[in-house]
Amino acid sequence: MNIVNPPPPPALSPELFARFVAIVGDKHALTDPAELEAYVTEERNLYRGHSPLVLRPGSTAEVAAICRLAHEARVALVPQGGNTGLVGGQTPHNGEVVISLKRLDAIREVDISSNTMTVEAGVILQNAQAKAAEVDRLFPLSLGAQGSCTIGGNLSTNAGGTAALAYGLARDMALGVEVVLADGRILNLLSKLKKDNTGYDLRDLFIGAEGTLGIITAATLKLFPKPRAVETAVVGLQSPADALKLLGIAQGEAAGNLTSFELIAEIAVDFSVRHAHNRDPLESRHPWYVLMELSSMRYDARGALEAILERGFEDGIVTDAAIAASITQQQAFWKLREEISPAQKPEGGSIKHDISVPVAAVPEFIAEASAAVVKLIPGARPVPFGHLGDGNIHYNVSQPVGADKAEFLARWHEVNSLVYAIVLRLGGSISAEHGIGVMKRDELPEVKDKTAIELMRAIKATFDPHGILNPGKVL
Amino acid sequence: MNIVNPPPPPALSPELFARFVAIVGDKHALTDPAELEAYVTEERNLYRGHSPLVLRPGSTAEVAAICRLAHEARVALVPQGGNTGLVGGQTPHNGEVVISLKRLDAIREVDISSNTMTVEAGVILQNAQAKAAEVDRLFPLSLGAQGSCTIGGNLSTNAGGTAALAYGLARDMALGVEVVLADGRILNLLSKLKKDNTGYDLRDLFIGAEGTLGIITAATLKLFPKPRAVETAVVGLQSPADALKLLGIAQGEAAGNLTSFELIAEIAVDFSVRHAHNRDPLESRHPWYVLMELSSMRYDARGALEAILERGFEDGIVTDAAIAASITQQQAFWKLREEISPAQKPEGGSIKHDISVPVAAVPEFIAEASAAVVKLIPGARPVPFGHLGDGNIHYNVSQPVGADKAEFLARWHEVNSLVYAIVLRLGGSISAEHGIGVMKRDELPEVKDKTAIELMRAIKATFDPHGILNPGKVL
Repeated sequence: MNIVNPPPPPALSPELFARFVAIVGDKHALTDPAELEAYVTEERNLYRGHSPLVLRPGSTAEVAAICRLAHEARVALVPQGGNTGLVGGQTPHNGEVVISLKRLDAIREVDISSNTMTVEAGVILQNAQAKAAEVDRLFPLSLGAQGSCTIGGNLSTNAGGTAALAYGLARDMALGVEVVLADGRILNLLSKLKKDNTGYDLRDLFIGAEGTLGIITAATLKLFPKPRAVETAVVGLQSPADALKLLGIAQGEAAGNLTSFELIAEIAVDFSVRHAHNRDPLESRHPWYVLMELSSMRYDARGALEAILERGFEDGIVTDAAIAASITQQQAFWKLREEISPAQKPEGGSIKHDISVPVAAVPEFIAEASAAVVKLIPGARPVPFGHLGDGNIHYNVSQPVGADKAEFLARWHEVNSLVYAIVLRLGGSISAEHGIGVMKRDELPEVKDKTAIELMRAIKATFDPHGILNPGKVL
Repeated sequence: MNIVNPPPPPALSPELFARFVAIVGDKHALTDPAELEAYVTEERNLYRGHSPLVLRPGSTAEVAAICRLAHEARVALVPQGGNTGLVGGQTPHNGEVVISLKRLDAIREVDISSNTMTVEAGVILQNAQAKAAEVDRLFPLSLGAQGSCTIGGNLSTNAGGTAALAYGLARDMALGVEVVLADGRILNLLSKLKKDNTGYDLRDLFIGAEGTLGIITAATLKLFPKPRAVETAVVGLQSPADALKLLGIAQGEAAGNLTSFELIAEIAVDFSVRHAHNRDPLESRHPWYVLMELSSMRYDARGALEAILERGFEDGIVTDAAIAASITQQQAFWKLREEISPAQKPEGGSIKHDISVPVAAVPEFIAEASAAVVKLIPGARPVPFGHLGDGNIHYNVSQPVGADKAEFLARWHEVNSLVYAIVLRLGGSISAEHGIGVMKRDELPEVKDKTAIELMRAIKATFDPHGILNPGKVL
C-alpha cells in the first residue's frame, strides 16, 4: 500500500543508539536485518516497514527509560505487541525504533476472590485465557489471532472478536491499566475496582489509542464465571434478513446467554471448506449461515438452543441446522468460521473492510455494498462474514476468478470509498474493531465529526508534544 | 460545609447579563431570588450556593451560544440537571451563572430494531425507564433519585445504582453523546454502534467529568431485553463475610442473571422501618440483610433463587429468608432499601462515605472502619449499606443518640480521613459512584496517582482554557 508518512526522523547518532541499547542490554536490542525482519513485516505482506533497532525491554521501568530518552532526543518509537494488527499500526513505516513489549509477559497476580487478573502487556491472549481457565474462570476475549496477539495490543486496538456480543470489547474487560507516557512518566491506573468515580476516565483514552498517547505496559482484567453449559449450532438460512430475525428470537430466548452470533456468506463457507479442509456440517449448501453459541451457568442451554431453532423453523427462517454433539464438533464449527480469513488467500487478492452499522441495517448494507462492488468490478466476489449481533461485518471482496491480483488490489481505495459511502449513509463506522492505523488514517477526517478530530489532535499534542509515539498512525 | 472556592468571578455587566438573557429569552432566564432558590440549594441542605442568573436553554444550539459567550467573556458556568448530586458538583458555590438542562427533555428517537434510545440531557431517568418499558425494553439504570435526576446528570457523574451488578454504570449504558464544549463547539458523538474503533474514546472523557470538560446535551442509550421473570428475596445473615459467601453462591448459580445484591446493616433496616414506616419481611431482626434480585428472559428464576437460598441454609450462611410473592411485595422490599437514606435524617447528623473496595475486602473494610469510627467518636452509629456485588458501600455514620448535631458534623473530615485511610490500604476508591464535586476535591490529590492528576489538569486546560466550566469542581 502507498503510505504517506511524516518526514523521516534524523538518523540515530552512534551515541544515542548506544544509550538506547544500554537500557535493555545488548541481548535485547536487535539490529541484525535478519532478526529485524519479523518486526518490520506483517503476516499478510500488506505492509513492509524498516527500522535500525528493535528494543525489547524487560520491565515497565525500561519502557519508561526508553520513552524518556526518546522524548528528550526526539526519536520516534513504534510500540509493538504480537504484530498481528490488521491496519499497519504496529509497523515502522518510516524507520522508527520499534519497542516490542513481548518480554513483558508476566502474569502479575490472579485474584480469584475479586475476579481479576493483572497481566503485563506482552502476555499472549491465549495464555491469559488459559490462566483464567486454570482457576475455573473465563477471560472471554476471543479472536483468530489469539495464539500470537498480546493483551497490550488487544487493549491498544480495543479488540472485539467473537464473544463481544455478550462480554463487550477489550475495553469492557479491563478494569485498569498501567501506561508509560511519551515523556517516560508512569501512570498507574491498575485497579480491581468496578466502581471508581474519582476524576476523568483516563483509562479509556489509552485503550484504543493504538499506542499514540502512551504505551500500555500492564492491565487488570476482569474474570467471569466459567459457563457450565456451552451449546453451538450452525444454521442454514436464505438471507441476512432471516439471520436478523433469528437473532431477535435468540436474544428474546437467551438474552445475555447468547454469546456468539456469526453471520457467514455461502462463499466464505466454500473457501473454508475448499482451502482449509473444513467440513460444512449441513447436508447441502445454503446461501447464508449462522454460527450461534449459547453459554450458561445453570439453565438448560440445549433446551434454549432447540427452542430458538424450532421457532426459526416454524417461522420459515431456518432451512437447516446442526447442533454440535461434542466439544470436538464445537471446535470444528469454530474452525470453519475462524479459517475464513486465511482461506481467502488462495482465491487471489482480497480487498478488506471491517465495518459496523446499526444491527438492523446489516441486510441493507450487504445488499447495497454487493450490488455496488459488482457493478464497479464485474466478477468481483463479496465474501461478507462477521459478528451480526454487533452489527460488525468483515466485508471482504475477493478478486474475479482469473483476474490479475495486482490490478485488482490497485483498486483498494476505490472499492473502500464505495463501501464507506454506504456505511456512512447508514450511520456506521469504517473501523469496527481493527482500528485506524495507517490503513484508514487518510479516510478518518472524512468520516469523523470535525470537532472530534480537533479534540483528538489537541489531546495528542498535550500527551505527546514531540510526536514520538507511533507517528503517522491514527491522526 | 466549608468550601474553598476559586476567586469570585467579576460581576456580570448589565450588557453581558442582557446578552445571556437574550439567548434563552426572558421567560427562561431566572433572576428572582425566590425562583433561584431551587437551583442554589440542594435537598440535604449540605451545600448552599448563590447565583445572579439561571439560564434554561431550550436547545443544544442555545447551550452552545451560552458557552460561546461565556468563553469569550470569561463567565463561569455551573451546569445542572435534576440537582440531586451528592457531592456539591451542581451548586454555584461562588456566584456562577447556572445553566439548567431541564428543558432539554425531548426523547429524540427510540429505535427498537437497534435497541437504542436517543434522549436529551434533561430527560428524567424515570421517564427514560418508562419510555423503554413502553416498547418492551429495559433501560436498567436505577437509583433512589430516579424520579428527579436527569440523564445528563447521570452521565456527567457516571451514576451507579442498584442494577450496576449486571448492567454496569451509566457509562456502560451509553453508546454515544452530544456535547457542547467550553467554547461553544458542538461535538456530535451520537451513535447507535456497539463497535466503533475510529480514534480516541472521547465519549468516556465527558462521562463522569462532572461538567468540567463540556456539557452533555444528549445521549444515545442502550436498551436491553425486558426480563420476563424477576424474583426478589430479603435474606437475614450473621455477617458481611456470610453475605460475601452467599454472593459467590448466587453468581455461581445465576451469573449475569443476578441483577442486584444489596447488603444492609440491621440498624439501616431499623431506621427504614421506624422512620419510613417500612416492614421488615423477616420474622425476627438479623445483624445483616441482603436484598437479592434475579432477572431472566426465560429460565426458572424462582428455581434458581430457591436453589441459592437452599445452599445458603445448608452452608449455615442464611439464617432466614423471604421471597417476594407478588410485585407489590417486591416493591415493598425495594422501598425498605431505597428509604434508608432519608430514614437517617430523623436520627440526627450523618457523616457519609461512598466508597468501593475489591469485593472480597468488604467485610474487612466494614469491620475496620466501624472499629476506628467508634473509637474516635464513642456512641457513633455506623450505618453501612450498599452494593456488595460491586464492592461499593455507602458507609454512613449516624451521630451518637442525643449528641449535638453540629458538633458531630464538624468532625466530618476527621471521620473521612480515618475511613479513607482504610479504603486506600485495601486498594479502594473514595468515590465509587457519587463523584468528586467539591466534597472530595481536596482529598483527590492525596488518593489519586500523581501522574493521573497531572494529566487531568492538562486535559482540563486543553478543553476549557479559560476555566469557565464548573470551576472548583473535581480539580
